[in-house]
Amino acid sequence: MGREVWPIAYPRGEVRASDFRVVEVEVRQPRPGEVLVRNTWTSVDAALRLRLRETAPAGYFPAFPLEGPMDGIMTVGEIVESRADGFAPGDTVWHASGWRDYAVVEAEQQALGGVGTLTKLDVHAAPPQTYLGALGANGLTAYAGLLHAAALREGDVVWVSAAAGAVGSLAAQMAKIRGHRVIGSAGSDEKVRYLLDELGLDAAFNYRRGTLPELLRQAAPDGIDVYFDNVGGDHLETALGALRRSGRVAICGMISEYAAEESSHGPGNLMLAVTKGLTIRGFRGSDHTRLLPEMQRHVGAWVREGRIRCRETITDGLPQAPVALAGLLRGDNTGKTLVRIDGVTHLN
Amino acid sequence: MGREVWPIAYPRGEVRASDFRVVEVEVRQPRPGEVLVRNTWTSVDAALRLRLRETAPAGYFPAFPLEGPMDGIMTVGEIVESRADGFAPGDTVWHASGWRDYAVVEAEQQALGGVGTLTKLDVHAAPPQTYLGALGANGLTAYAGLLHAAALREGDVVWVSAAAGAVGSLAAQMAKIRGHRVIGSAGSDEKVRYLLDELGLDAAFNYRRGTLPELLRQAAPDGIDVYFDNVGGDHLETALGALRRSGRVAICGMISEYAAEESSHGPGNLMLAVTKGLTIRGFRGSDHTRLLPEMQRHVGAWVREGRIRCRETITDGLPQAPVALAGLLRGDNTGKTLVRIDGVTHLN
Repeated sequence: MGREVWPIAYPRGEVRASDFRVVEVEVRQPRPGEVLVRNTWTSVDAALRLRLRETAPAGYFPAFPLEGPMDGIMTVGEIVESRADGFAPGDTVWHASGWRDYAVVEAEQQALGGVGTLTKLDVHAAPPQTYLGALGANGLTAYAGLLHAAALREGDVVWVSAAAGAVGSLAAQMAKIRGHRVIGSAGSDEKVRYLLDELGLDAAFNYRRGTLPELLRQAAPDGIDVYFDNVGGDHLETALGALRRSGRVAICGMISEYAAEESSHGPGNLMLAVTKGLTIRGFRGSDHTRLLPEMQRHVGAWVREGRIRCRETITDGLPQAPVALAGLLRGDNTGKTLVRIDGVTHLN
Repeated sequence: MGREVWPIAYPRGEVRASDFRVVEVEVRQPRPGEVLVRNTWTSVDAALRLRLRETAPAGYFPAFPLEGPMDGIMTVGEIVESRADGFAPGDTVWHASGWRDYAVVEAEQQALGGVGTLTKLDVHAAPPQTYLGALGANGLTAYAGLLHAAALREGDVVWVSAAAGAVGSLAAQMAKIRGHRVIGSAGSDEKVRYLLDELGLDAAFNYRRGTLPELLRQAAPDGIDVYFDNVGGDHLETALGALRRSGRVAICGMISEYAAEESSHGPGNLMLAVTKGLTIRGFRGSDHTRLLPEMQRHVGAWVREGRIRCRETITDGLPQAPVALAGLLRGDNTGKTLVRIDGVTHLN
């Protein structure tokens, strides 16, 4: 028997633990081409909120069905039994069947646009859970966002919002490594200290401590060239105001909008895109899966050299995953939000 | 003496003729490096509205000062007197000192980002006023918008709003020539007939005849790949909904926003840029001045071959320029809006 976390109601507004339940299920044997994985770590991502609703936004991964396991959440685990070539018991792997103790995974099946396809991990290069953050989907999102969506150019001044978050902290550090002046924003003074003292950003501010345009002006008096958007809403509007000619916005996420039932208030100053020649590009890491090996090579080295810090906010126990998600959406986390599954039940 | 049209008050909401006055001024002699031009045609452009306010949007050309001539409006005329090398009396030229009978123009002075710099026109290739539309700034805007901002790819389905307007009608026809399926929208049934019967677009609709998303769905049941935006507001929001994966928006203008005193309501569905991997790029023709010769070569041939139609909405008499602008902003025009200056006064 193994536990699974199922959504039982789509949250209205804030996510609550009562929107989920933990279910004990039989674990079936793998068929040819499949492996059985005992999951050890599972990812908690703000964007899961987009799938906890009747209909996910067009073009996105589908909504999670109620009263069933959640497919398409990155997870790390150990193979218990393998009937797939190239995989053996004891191998550490990632796959996309998270929020459960055990998963039967088809080796060839593409998941999460390719990022979540069953893959063996080099646990000598980094601790397994790093593959859910810096060396996984978050790293890819930060990397592709900066290089492709934002088309980073030498000398660009870069603002990253939610810069203490899983993707934001990686994007901000990568931009620093490339020699940019980087401004980070976050929602608490403690996070701002983290951005300045641990990540070494050039400037940082707590967006709750004043008006956004004024806070950004103090941090970047001459404006910015790139805005890496994790927040949307007033942050995006402020960025459009501060961007210099030919500036770029890479929209990675819009955490301010995820709980909205209806379409919300968009930036009212989009005309500045015309007058300043701005480019606004939305993207997902999974659109850039081919960059994964290149990203892992670079970021793996930066992590080992201590040039990229990976703070983790860890919650223990699979049943606490919904609580961890609710906390993440409230902004409680710093760095990568993870659940250490710590299964206490055993295979029958 | 010559007449000039001066703004005397910044319009609140709609432009009114009473926001301007016609002034008789002395015409001075050209100094070395200058020419004196008798203007014959002057351009009327929706975007002038952006400069008829205390402060123009950041990055744009500056606001027109009150009680003075309007600098930075494309005009065609004949040189009366030249003290600049390469220019002789009788030459037909364009320059950017419009809305007046006579202009003294410095030959070397860059105007309107280079597009409006004093330039001799080949009047055997096309009638002079064509250089204010298809072979001038409007043609450049349509051309650069499609090829650069929208990065048109083979097979793209293209929606052009305000498709009966000066820039829209050119963009729509250029996209047709490149083999695309082109949908045009406009604000009257008569304009829709023009789009279908004269410009040969694949589909067209009057946006006043229903709800935009439904009208667009009928015209493009499988969605669109490119939206060439001249309108902003609800048109842009509808486009974001209809765009397919990796779709692109080229924002050329936002006529729906020009009269707004404050920042207005932006598209509430920008999150679709993330989920569908959309790119939204604002641009001005004057950012792409280096494309002017290439554009004129292509578009000149298409105009001569009858593959591009250039309808003109002509108002006679310089004093009527404000009336022509007000009409344009209300949507009265089809194709290029022009004022035939028809000066009745004479040089002293």
